Amino acid sequence: QSQPRKAPPLEKTLPCSLEELYKGTTKKMKIAREIADISGKTIPVEEILTIDIKPGWKKGTKITFPEKGNEHPNVIPADLVFTIDEKPHDVFTRDSNDIIVTQRVPLADALSGYTARIKTLDGRTLTIPITNVIHPNYEEVVPGEGMPLPKNPSKRGNLRIKFDTTFPSRLTQDQKAGMRRLLTGA
Amino acid sequence: QSQPRKAPPLEKTLPCSLEELYKGTTKKMKIAREIADISGKTIPVEEILTIDIKPGWKKGTKITFPEKGNEHPNVIPADLVFTIDEKPHDVFTRDSNDIIVTQRVPLADALSGYTARIKTLDGRTLTIPITNVIHPNYEEVVPGEGMPLPKNPSKRGNLRIKFDTTFPSRLTQDQKAGMRRLLTGA
Repeated sequence: QSQPRKAPPLEKTLPCSLEELYKGTTKKMKIAREIADISGKTIPVEEILTIDIKPGWKKGTKITFPEKGNEHPNVIPADLVFTIDEKPHDVFTRDSNDIIVTQRVPLADALSGYTARIKTLDGRTLTIPITNVIHPNYEEVVPGEGMPLPKNPSKRGNLRIKFDTTFPSRLTQDQKAGMRRLLTGA
Repeated sequence: QSQPRKAPPLEKTLPCSLEELYKGTTKKMKIAREIADISGKTIPVEEILTIDIKPGWKKGTKITFPEKGNEHPNVIPADLVFTIDEKPHDVFTRDSNDIIVTQRVPLADALSGYTARIKTLDGRTLTIPITNVIHPNYEEVVPGEGMPLPKNPSKRGNLRIKFDTTFPSRLTQDQKAGMRRLLTGA
C-alpha cells in the first residue's frame, strides 16, 4: 500500500496597505475548493478563511492554512499559503520597522527654522519643530513613531523625516550680496 | 587528415588611466610565448607588442593580436585579446563621452555666485563663472570639454559639473531672521 503523496502548496499573495500593517486588521478571504465525500465523489464548496494581520507584519510574512487545497482520493490536500505584500504608500516608505517621509521645504525654512506637520498612519497629526539647519542630508528622527515591532507591538520603530529643499530659481544682486554678507560676514 | 583546431583566445585586461584614454597613448607589452621551429620543437621567446590606444577609447574596447599564443603541432595558436579597462580617477568620472566632476561649494557661493576652476585631463585650467543659483540638482554643462569621440577625436563630449553644497552647521538668530527677510521679504 503506497503512502498518499501531498499536493504542492498553493501560494497566494495578500496585498496590504501600510495602514493595515501599522494598525493590524482582519481579512476574510473567500476560497473555492473541492472536497471529497465518503464515497470519494468531489463536490465544490466555498469557504471563508480569516487572516488576522498583526501590527508590524512585514512583506514576506507567510500564513499557512494546512490542507485547504482540493481533496482528491489518495492525495493529501495542498497547504494554502498566503504571503503578505505591502502596497506602495503615497506618503511613507518603510525601512524595516522605520517609516520614512520626505518633506519639501523652501530654502528660507530650511535655514531659519521649520515645523513639520505629519499625519500618522493612524490619523494623528505630529507637530515637530526643527531648529537645526536643514542641510541636504539632514534627517530628523522621531523615536517611537515608526511601525510596531511584530514581537512587541507596544514598542515601535522610528519615523525618519528627510527633506527636499527647494532653492529660489533666481536671486537679485541685492539678495546675493545680502546672502554673502549674512553667511560669510564679507 | 584532420583540420587543425584553433586554441581558445587568451584574454588579458589592459588597465588605462582616464588621462591615457583622453589623450591616447602607446603601450608596449612584453609577452612570453613558445614558437615551434621547422622540426616541431618548441622554444620560448619574448616579444614586444605595441598597442596604440586611441583618444576616447572606452572600457571594454578589445584589441586582438591574431595567433600570438603558443605554437604547438597541429594547433592554430590562440589569438591574444586585450580588453581596455579604465582605472578609477581621483577627480573625474566618465559617462560615455562625458566627464563628470563634483565641486564642493559653500552655501554662500551656491547662492551668490561661484567661479569653478577645473584642471582638465590634459593639464589646462578652465575658469567657469556660474551666476545661476546652484540648487541641489544643478549641473553646469561645459560643451566640448569631455572625452574625445573615438570615431572623430576632433569632437568631444561635455564636461558636466555637479555640486555638493555645504550648509553652515548652525546660524545665529540674527542670521536666521536675515535669511528669512532676504528670501521671503517677511
